[in-house]
Amino acid sequence: MSQVGILISGRGSNMVALLDAMDRGEIPARCSLVISNKADAPGLALAAARGVPTLVIDHKASATREEHDAKVVTALREAGVEIVCLAGYMRLLSPVFVRAFKNRILNIHPALLPAFPGLHVQRKALDAGARFSGCTVHLVDEEVDHGPILLQAVVPIFPDDDEESLSRRILGLEHHLYAAALRLMCEGRVTVDGSRAVLDVPHKEYQRLSGGLIWSGDSQ
Amino acid sequence: MSQVGILISGRGSNMVALLDAMDRGEIPARCSLVISNKADAPGLALAAARGVPTLVIDHKASATREEHDAKVVTALREAGVEIVCLAGYMRLLSPVFVRAFKNRILNIHPALLPAFPGLHVQRKALDAGARFSGCTVHLVDEEVDHGPILLQAVVPIFPDDDEESLSRRILGLEHHLYAAALRLMCEGRVTVDGSRAVLDVPHKEYQRLSGGLIWSGDSQ
Repeated sequence: MSQVGILISGRGSNMVALLDAMDRGEIPARCSLVISNKADAPGLALAAARGVPTLVIDHKASATREEHDAKVVTALREAGVEIVCLAGYMRLLSPVFVRAFKNRILNIHPALLPAFPGLHVQRKALDAGARFSGCTVHLVDEEVDHGPILLQAVVPIFPDDDEESLSRRILGLEHHLYAAALRLMCEGRVTVDGSRAVLDVPHKEYQRLSGGLIWSGDSQ
Repeated sequence: MSQVGILISGRGSNMVALLDAMDRGEIPARCSLVISNKADAPGLALAAARGVPTLVIDHKASATREEHDAKVVTALREAGVEIVCLAGYMRLLSPVFVRAFKNRILNIHPALLPAFPGLHVQRKALDAGARFSGCTVHLVDEEVDHGPILLQAVVPIFPDDDEESLSRRILGLEHHLYAAALRLMCEGRVTVDGSRAVLDVPHKEYQRLSGGLIWSGDSQ
């Protein structure tokens, strides 16, 4: 069983999806700690209700990003965390943090990276007139929304979409994708080769997986 | 019937796909002229064999890009061309050309723009560890591989892919996608609103179209 830590800043809907998947036994891991940088993050109560230890480390109490990150790293280590999942954590990670958990920090981003990094992602996709978007789970390196890609999922963009409808469609796949990627990590099926993550998954299984990572209707 | 001109520099496999689709009556258009900037482009013979007028305008005979493009624009106009399709045309278009056929020049690019513009596209997608790529038909503006997107199609990238296998998978969708986009243009179902192309396609049809633009196996 891997020990996972989850970082949130708000509701943490992807945190809930990961906790649920662990509870259902779909991921060989348990969540040792949820940390929020905001005391009023609604996700704290959701984690606590599931019996997961929670901690608030307010970034405003630290003078620098490095000082804040050092506190977070210490707390994660004390809880025995091996893999860190960012779930709507609205903070850039300093090199201190990235190096402390090198190739063991996962993030999910609601676009097909390298397209549309950063904020206002759906707005960017709509403005670009993209006909497809999706979401990406990747290992975190020292650039924003960057690092070896583990899995991606695809959704179509329809002519009448706005940011809200597109966000909703992508979020439906995010929960599934993030759990699938964390499972691969915890099963030790991810290695990093330069800028790429190599998945130890048989071709047939990968092909099925890829097909399953394409949106197939609102009923999904 | 719209009058279409096609520009090539080599074999022009997308040119052949468009000519075939016109011959089958799938696009309300006829090809009035194929122009190559290279005298030895194999696509010239393929077009001529279908009874399509061809012309070589060697870019090396012009001192500047603008001078060359002016000759091409004149030839297209004299042939009555209304819509221009680039099919492996290895030349950047000058503003002279883009303005002469504003919002009436189509290009196809083997990636999901804005991801991976430029050359060595499959290499870039593989190096980025992207799990999906595809192709894009767009209207040409004055930037490289840029302009309002008409249609995109999606293919998965498999762990054992190389540039050649990925190119082949994408090319299989390109021919279908380019013909579908040119059909929409010729049917007058494309308008441009700022940076976006708006398609006059009923939602249900668009949804079906999008589903059809996802790769569904090598047998396709």
